[in-house]
Amino acid sequence: MKQFISALDVPGIPALVQEALHYKNNPLADRQLGQGKRLGLMFFNPSLRTRLSTQIAAQQLGMESIVFNAGQDGWAFEFADGAVMNGSTVEHIKDAAPVLSSYFDILCIRTFPGLVDRDQDYAEFVLQQFIKHIRIPVVSLESATLHPLQSLADIITLEEHKPAARRPKVVLSWAPHIKSIPQCVSNSFAQWVNAWGQADFVITHPEGYELAEDYTRGAQITHNQQEALQDADFVYVKNWSSYNDYGKVLHDGAGWMLDEQKLKAAPAAKVMHCLPVRRNLELSDEILDGPRSLVSQQAANRVWSAQAVLSRILKSL
Amino acid sequence: MKQFISALDVPGIPALVQEALHYKNNPLADRQLGQGKRLGLMFFNPSLRTRLSTQIAAQQLGMESIVFNAGQDGWAFEFADGAVMNGSTVEHIKDAAPVLSSYFDILCIRTFPGLVDRDQDYAEFVLQQFIKHIRIPVVSLESATLHPLQSLADIITLEEHKPAARRPKVVLSWAPHIKSIPQCVSNSFAQWVNAWGQADFVITHPEGYELAEDYTRGAQITHNQQEALQDADFVYVKNWSSYNDYGKVLHDGAGWMLDEQKLKAAPAAKVMHCLPVRRNLELSDEILDGPRSLVSQQAANRVWSAQAVLSRILKSL
Amino acid sequence: MKQFISALDVPGIPALVQEALHYKNNPLADRQLGQGKRLGLMFFNPSLRTRLSTQIAAQQLGMESIVFNAGQDGWAFEFADGAVMNGSTVEHIKDAAPVLSSYFDILCIRTFPGLVDRDQDYAEFVLQQFIKHIRIPVVSLESATLHPLQSLADIITLEEHKPAARRPKVVLSWAPHIKSIPQCVSNSFAQWVNAWGQADFVITHPEGYELAEDYTRGAQITHNQQEALQDADFVYVKNWSSYNDYGKVLHDGAGWMLDEQKLKAAPAAKVMHCLPVRRNLELSDEILDGPRSLVSQQAANRVWSAQAVLSRILKSL
Repeated sequence: MKQFISALDVPGIPALVQEALHYKNNPLADRQLGQGKRLGLMFFNPSLRTRLSTQIAAQQLGMESIVFNAGQDGWAFEFADGAVMNGSTVEHIKDAAPVLSSYFDILCIRTFPGLVDRDQDYAEFVLQQFIKHIRIPVVSLESATLHPLQSLADIITLEEHKPAARRPKVVLSWAPHIKSIPQCVSNSFAQWVNAWGQADFVITHPEGYELAEDYTRGAQITHNQQEALQDADFVYVKNWSSYNDYGKVLHDGAGWMLDEQKLKAAPAAKVMHCLPVRRNLELSDEILDGPRSLVSQQAANRVWSAQAVLSRILKSL
Repeated sequence: MKQFISALDVPGIPALVQEALHYKNNPLADRQLGQGKRLGLMFFNPSLRTRLSTQIAAQQLGMESIVFNAGQDGWAFEFADGAVMNGSTVEHIKDAAPVLSSYFDILCIRTFPGLVDRDQDYAEFVLQQFIKHIRIPVVSLESATLHPLQSLADIITLEEHKPAARRPKVVLSWAPHIKSIPQCVSNSFAQWVNAWGQADFVITHPEGYELAEDYTRGAQITHNQQEALQDADFVYVKNWSSYNDYGKVLHDGAGWMLDEQKLKAAPAAKVMHCLPVRRNLELSDEILDGPRSLVSQQAANRVWSAQAVLSRILKSL
Repeated sequence: MKQFISALDVPGIPALVQEALHYKNNPLADRQLGQGKRLGLMFFNPSLRTRLSTQIAAQQLGMESIVFNAGQDGWAFEFADGAVMNGSTVEHIKDAAPVLSSYFDILCIRTFPGLVDRDQDYAEFVLQQFIKHIRIPVVSLESATLHPLQSLADIITLEEHKPAARRPKVVLSWAPHIKSIPQCVSNSFAQWVNAWGQADFVITHPEGYELAEDYTRGAQITHNQQEALQDADFVYVKNWSSYNDYGKVLHDGAGWMLDEQKLKAAPAAKVMHCLPVRRNLELSDEILDGPRSLVSQQAANRVWSAQAVLSRILKSL
């Protein structure tokens, strides 16, 4: 594996999931693999769960990691070709990328969408500029449109908790929020569940919240949340802002919070969320504090997700 | 030892002091003890001495440590049960704690008092919420009311410099400052000297600066600084704001700075301060630059304090 | 070597360059040398290239390193002897330095000039206060007037690319910028090229941009850029503010950007810059994207520069 920015980079998801579960049972199985290798973690947006889980995965593979924050640590990049740099940007990506390539063996990058210009966000402009100019493998720690390490952790969690004898029903259920939230976790979850191919997949959201078809194709989509929840095995709860009316909050969310009342239609359902979760807005306390909740397990699986990915990339160096 | 937030967590202070002195002579004696273990250092308040000394202690025990700043790194916690999270907090402690429990083996936390609501500060609300929801040992890197790693370093320093043949006289002497300062270092020093039980202990401060009795019980308290200093072996200089008129600065401090003139009454006295110290406001240059000062030794002993505590906790895992 | 703040600390530059090149071929040749040693990296000014390259060098020597930002991490220092500290500074260098001496084996410091008071900047007040009070070796990560790790990397790059059979012509050519920039990279490059003694050295800049003679002595100085460039083997491009009219920007820079047109007079010239570079203001895209540019190699050589210096200092401990 030469990069990891989307499900499309993974030749076979089930095998990668098994590698992650292998590390979960044997965290230090490959502690020599990363010896003498260096991981750069570059953040354009702050992070804790992602930063910590990736650093831990690197440690367990014997790699050194160094964290740095673009902008905050003083690095404002220019991405435009031919720019006359007499303004606020201080270094062109064309000059920074070779330096990062010489300092690190793998570069992890977190970027974020502006939520204003959909074409630019969905072109993954910043991430792709790095990939274009860098000579080492790039791992996404969340980008403008996708969050593949989260999604792999989600699939690992599905694999661990799926019913033994039948194909699970997985529901992605839109939830209320007070802010305009990127579509990346939802896009990415949809992409990975579809690519995994081992679930019946339903997406439910209010009108106007349709996600990009590139990711949802293969899922059943409905605006009727209660119908979607019927007999679900897993309900993944997540807010996102509108893709069509880009970045907008179209709905106050009334009636869309998931609670136990709604899950009477799905008595066996497990509930997932990528965290951080707005309690009693997206999801009720009773669910999060009860036995249905898998949110802690998902977060814990972030380590094994990152470790499986870094391991694959280390083996390809 | 299953947690370290107060002197009450330590079964025997003298034995812990000896363990710290053992590490001072043999920093790498237990470099295998922490192998494969991970320490999280979580700061709600910035820190340098505490952060550095704890990271060094962890390194010397072979542990990996990862530092993160709540708030600054983007993590604003909700602590209230049942909160509808439609405001500025982004993650509930009930959701964050299990994640931290899965990522780390020991969690070190620094919290701070608001100095407005005494009941909330003295209930150690934030620290106790972490302890309630987390499943790994917690070490305080200073809390709203106590600073136990500092106090252990202080006791180590007393042990190293105490007179050979008699019980030392230890004086905690209030000092001027320009800001409203927490009581935690003073509370904690009082608690530890009392729990250590190997000194005659006097506390002196202006009227209105009485500390909480829970910590001072056992000490002699006087508003007459000169009387307190008489024949002292150790004078610990520290400012704190009022406990009774909570968080207030009641006195401009005139006449309370410690200088050589005052120490004519205690010719053998050693002088201590936890640093950072406001020179020529709390303590005079002549003392800090002279042979009486133990402030550098105290700060150096922070490493051995942290190492002894982490070692005890590692052995109990 | 007991400190590294200027070319004057280096007994023989060619030998140090050879040591750096040895590490470039064998990064882990001395991975045991720093075992059990600790490097503090203290920044008064943010940094990325310098921070990353020094941390990498330390890792490759087996040293632990800990980064901290004075100010940002809460440490505002007082440097004045006898200060009554009732203002904004919270800790005196006289108290901080012994603590740092006990926590670390080597201290790396980055300071910066105020560009207002030339005497204070050129006395290297902050750096010298640290050196005065600290008991461990100090390495400059850039100071008010010099940037020796950059200059060593520059000399390494000259050594690697110099013509085989003759003495190279090296030109330091002033470039436009939109801000008032310190003289340190330029001073330092001049000092090192002169101390290296293996090049014909020309400095060119507009009138009023004369650098301090202490560093330039030995170089030919001209205001005629085109004359300076004639038959150059290396052109080092850099902006700096005025030394005589201290810190001022005297010239809008029109006509001083280096481009291919100007280099018709020096067809074999390699072009250097310490990065970050303002494209199409200091240097044209065509040069930076073409085969003349050594800027990536210079940045990559920062690692070997730091590794050679830390190695020398470790051997002297």
